[in-house]
Order: sequence, then structure tokens, then C-alpha cells
Amino acid sequence: MRDVSIIGIGQTPVGEHWDKSLRELGFRALHAAMKDAGVERIDALYVGNMLSGELTAQEHLGALIADFAGLRGIEAIKVEAACGSGAAALRVGYMAVAGGLHDFVACIGVEKMTDQQSGTVTSALATAADADYEALQGLSFVSINALLMRRYMHEYGYKKEDFANFAITAHANAMNNPYAMFHSPITARQFAEAKPIADPINLLDSSPIADGAACVILAPTAIAKEFTHKPVRVKATAIATDTLAVHDRRDPLYLEGGAISAQKAYAMAGVGPADIDLFEVHDAFTIMSALSLEAAGFAPRGQGVRLAMEGEIGLSGRIPITTMGGLKARGHPVGATGMYQIVEVAEQLREEAGANQVQNARLGMAQNIGGSGATVVTTILERI
Amino acid sequence: MRDVSIIGIGQTPVGEHWDKSLRELGFRALHAAMKDAGVERIDALYVGNMLSGELTAQEHLGALIADFAGLRGIEAIKVEAACGSGAAALRVGYMAVAGGLHDFVACIGVEKMTDQQSGTVTSALATAADADYEALQGLSFVSINALLMRRYMHEYGYKKEDFANFAITAHANAMNNPYAMFHSPITARQFAEAKPIADPINLLDSSPIADGAACVILAPTAIAKEFTHKPVRVKATAIATDTLAVHDRRDPLYLEGGAISAQKAYAMAGVGPADIDLFEVHDAFTIMSALSLEAAGFAPRGQGVRLAMEGEIGLSGRIPITTMGGLKARGHPVGATGMYQIVEVAEQLREEAGANQVQNARLGMAQNIGGSGATVVTTILERI
Repeated sequence: MRDVSIIGIGQTPVGEHWDKSLRELGFRALHAAMKDAGVERIDALYVGNMLSGELTAQEHLGALIADFAGLRGIEAIKVEAACGSGAAALRVGYMAVAGGLHDFVACIGVEKMTDQQSGTVTSALATAADADYEALQGLSFVSINALLMRRYMHEYGYKKEDFANFAITAHANAMNNPYAMFHSPITARQFAEAKPIADPINLLDSSPIADGAACVILAPTAIAKEFTHKPVRVKATAIATDTLAVHDRRDPLYLEGGAISAQKAYAMAGVGPADIDLFEVHDAFTIMSALSLEAAGFAPRGQGVRLAMEGEIGLSGRIPITTMGGLKARGHPVGATGMYQIVEVAEQLREEAGANQVQNARLGMAQNIGGSGATVVTTILERI
Repeated sequence: MRDVSIIGIGQTPVGEHWDKSLRELGFRALHAAMKDAGVERIDALYVGNMLSGELTAQEHLGALIADFAGLRGIEAIKVEAACGSGAAALRVGYMAVAGGLHDFVACIGVEKMTDQQSGTVTSALATAADADYEALQGLSFVSINALLMRRYMHEYGYKKEDFANFAITAHANAMNNPYAMFHSPITARQFAEAKPIADPINLLDSSPIADGAACVILAPTAIAKEFTHKPVRVKATAIATDTLAVHDRRDPLYLEGGAISAQKAYAMAGVGPADIDLFEVHDAFTIMSALSLEAAGFAPRGQGVRLAMEGEIGLSGRIPITTMGGLKARGHPVGATGMYQIVEVAEQLREEAGANQVQNARLGMAQNIGGSGATVVTTILERI
């Protein structure tokens, strides 16, 4: 297998893009990444997306974006793994370059959620859950996460306010990310008093739906320095699965897919949690941050939320997370999110994170979660 | 790169499976293929599917089927390229094994179209076309193909009846395929008098929607003989794209994606059209058979239909096609179709095609088409 590096990154602002179509968002991220890499040749395009069919009556995004980007003819497909689609597209791109099938590969994550031409977001998101046994009962993703959060508080003796720092940290970090959806700091009091959504989850536990696209260009590390003086090595990429339905899990508070995925990635990279300098978590809801930190080995079971309470998730803490705003404040265009996380880790490793720079960051990790943990994609990147 | 072979094949009957869910169909094909290969270990699962979100409100099929099949934990994703999804899933599986990332990979194509819980088929299929510039105008896939057929007849001076043999051959071959949807031969007169759908396309030009799933198990050729005495080498797999919208093509009667895809596959396999012993075409409509035969180099431009008229597409003809019934008579569960084609080519190369056996078949090819040619996946298999 060949060593693979990211030679270019690109992203659109996350937000409500009423004036830009799905294909245009994808193209803009791709164009920015190609410009960043200084390449004009792309051999294959892998598009991570979850809901284009449900919300904009458009499948077939691989060919659609390839054509719109002037790349007609190249290999192009869409990859779907619910909200884990973005990092799953990177995984496929990695296989293509590592295996020697292609030299220049673009991996895009793209989602357009605000312009709901052919469906509604809550129903569309529920297609990540078990349609026959969860969604049919009326379970939405907010309610699934509310059940998990309530159970976590009960099992481990936490109060709702103990989760506040996940959201506060994300909003603080988004202040310095020009691509983030929200540029508004929040306080512990605002968190405590926020409007309830599905008890115990309130508005400030929840990431917002959004439109956006992010992209990386991959190439063999052997030629990466011809294109950039800041290549970022894809040290590991691993996908693991769990049951779709939460009620089928051995323990609903243990992200087994997250643990297997992290273990595979650590083994592939030859590192452990102590070596990771920053960790982009999938903070769709604050409870997911706690569970992901635990599954990835940064905290013992039931102690993930303690990292937030003790301020260890800040930029100079023990394990900085959501360094550019996370899903909570950068925004969560579902199929694009995994690629935003990867672009942000790359920014950190390239020392381009500005005021949010994690000092001496050498190894960065992202964990992108589909459904309530049924697909988990862990990516480890390394500064060369 | 490692040499890759198919060590097991499986399929469900194609038809209306009112008593089987999407996950059960996928599982049955997977189980049959694992049993055929004699393997119990699967490292990764790639699921080709187009419309699970639109029709049954279920995305996230990778994890869903992995869990249902008792493979919880493994890598699993869904791959989508409209009606080209099935063969695109094989492409991803090939990359995983060829690159050395996995040893035992299952590639499934699955679709459930008759039980339309959350949408209607005609609208859902239109998501393969350009939503903003074709579907919005009311163009369906039947009407797109009707425009192409009318233009072909006009440009090259054919009558509608000249296409009859594509449908007659498919129905004749399906008679001996226990998995086919139709077991009813048709005559030239029935073809000529069939109910019009979108002039000049009638009912017997058109493949039926259906439910079904097909699966192959891939492994390195080096160990394939430990599992089967009839491994089938994946000699080539190639994806190429074209514009989604037919009106954007340089020439609507030339499947440029089909030509590029076939050329890539021939180059990878080191063979040409004259070396191919059978060719599973994507006969969603009879016109597509003609265009695919031309794009793949089996006939000059405007002469594809002549192969049918002259009987050269039969089992002992110059280039046998739709040897197990094709989309027309085996049935067309869209995201599964590409995998059915591959399973059928493998059956021929394993000499298990019974009364439909193409004598001395050594090299077989399949061309799986997404949309009206925007994604074309060409696969070449070889008897070892």
C-alpha cells in the first residue's frame, strides 16, 4: 500500500445558502481544495452525502458534481453512511490512492438541508435510524439522544448543567472560524435557560442543520511535496458499525462502533489516545461528545463529561475538541460534517488555525458518527 | 495491487417480495454468497443501492445489513451511482481487496421498489436525472429514453420493430433462469402490438421495476482456490461519467461515459471487444442495449440494433447478451441490477448457466448504466 497525504483542503461557509444549489456548494469546496493544492488533474471523485435524494430530489451526485466541475468522464460515486458519510468518502478515496488505482482523488462532503424541496428534515434524518423499529414508533434523532442523555445522567449521577462546557467551548472556538455558522459566544446561564427541545436536551445541546461542503485532495505522499509544503499524512482511517436501533445494543451508553473504529485506527497508526493532540468529536448533541470521548479512550466510562466540566477540552487542555466550533457552532450539514472535521484537523496540523491553533499539534483525530453510533469513522492525520 | 477474485455468488429471485424487507433481501443474497464461498468471515460490506431513502425511508444500509447478518462491527457503507450502484459497489470492494485493506469483502446490490412506503417510483427514479433541469420539466426516465429512441430511429433509418429482438432474446433466456421475474416468451407480433408507454417505447421495450438482491464475495486470487474450485478473476472494473442531463451531451446518441468506461476496462484487462465471450448489457429499454453495444465497441455507431436484427445477440451469436434474461426479463431492481449482471457473468464463467450456457466462455463483461449514461461501470471477469 502507498502512503497517502492530503495535499489540498477547501470548504464553503456553513449556513443557509439560499442562493447556491447542492452542486454549486460541492463545486466551490472542490475548487477551493484544487486551488489550495495547485492541481488541475483529478482522477476520481468520492462524494459523501446523506440526504440529497430526500431533500432536493437529486441522487447521482458523483456524476452531477464531476460534470458541474468540468471533470466530465472521471470516476465518481456517492458514498452514504448517514451522518458518517463525509469521513466515509475519505475512506474510499484513501483506498483508491493507497491501492494505486488513482493518484489525484477529491473527497467531498456536501449537504443542503435548508431548502427542503421534496421532504422535511426531521423525517429525512430519521432514515439514519431503524425505519421499521425506531422511526415507525416516532423516534427522532433528538429523542434518541434525549433518552441516551437521561440514562447517562441517571447511571453516572450528573446534572444537565454538567454538559454546558461542551457547548460553551464550541461557541467560543467558532468565534475565530470564518466558515462557522454561529459567531456568538454563549454562557453557562444561557445554556441552563435555553429552550427545551426533548427533555433533557435543550436548544444549546443541539447542533443546527445547515448547508455546506468541504473537500480534501489526496495524493501519494511520495509526490505530495511537489504540490504543497504542508502535506498532511492520512495516518489511519477506519470504519466500524453497530446496531442501527439503540434498543438492540448490549449497552446503550457504550458506543461500541466508536470503540472498535478507534481501536482499528490506533492500530493502523501505531499510536494511542495519549499521542493525540486534538480530537474533533461528533457533537451533534452534547451527550454524543461525552460518549465519543469515552469510546475513543480519552476518558473512562462515565467520565467523558468530566473532561468538559474540568476544562480539559479547551485549546490548551488535555484533549482539545471542537477546535473550530464543532457541529454545535460551526454547524452540522450532516453528510458534509465528517469532511469539515477532517479539513479542520488538517488546518490545525498545517498551523493555519489562527487564534485557535493547538500548539505543537502533530497528530489530530476526528470521529464522525452516523446515526446514534451505528457507523463510526475514525480518521487520524499527521503533520509531516 | 493484489489480484482479486469472486469466490462466492448469491441472489434472491427478482420479483415482488411483499413478505421480505429490504434488509432481509440483502441478507439472503449475502448468506447465499457466503455459503457458496464457504466463508464465515467478512471484513467489509459495500452495499449498492439507489432508492432506499426515497421508497422505504431507510438510509444507512451498510450498518443495517451488517447488523441483520450478524456481522455487527465490520466496516460497512452504501454506494450510490443511480442504476449503476450495484457495479459501483463491486468497484469499491475491488479497491479494498486489491489495495490489501481487506481479505474477505462482500458486495451487495439491493433494491425494494414495489413496497413504496414513502414515495413513488417514477419520481424516485427521476432523482438519477438532473433534478433542476430535467426532472423539473417533467422528464421521466421513460420519456428520456423515448426521445433517444426516436432520435436514433430518425438518424439511422430504423423502424420500431427493428428493436424487437432485444426483448424477445431476453424473455427467451429468462425461461431458464429460476431467479428471473418473467418466465414468458414473447413474439415479434406481441412486441409490435404492445401497449405504448411513451412513443416509440412500448411495454415490451421496458424493463420492469422489482425487488431483489445479489451479492458476490471477493478475496485475493492467491487464496481463492482454498474456498472454491471455480474462482472468477475480476480482470477489470472501471467507472466513467458523463453529464446528467442528456441535453448537455455533445451527441445524445453517443454514450461517452460508456465508451470511456469500456476503454478503461479493456486497457486494465489487456483485451478488446473481440476477446469478450458474452456481454451483459443494461437493457433498461431496448434503445439502451443498442447504445451500450456501440459504446463498448461491439458495433459501429448506428449499427447496435443491427446485431439484434441479425440474431447475433443470441447464446451462440457473435456477442451473446442478456444471457439470463437481462433487465427486461430477469427484472430491474435498480440498485441491485449491476450486481445481478456480475453474478450472471460469473455463472457463465463457472459453467453453471445450464441451458443458457455460452460455450467456452472465458471472458465476460457487464456494463451497468446509471441515469441515461451519466455513470457507466464496466466490469470484465475471467475464468481462471
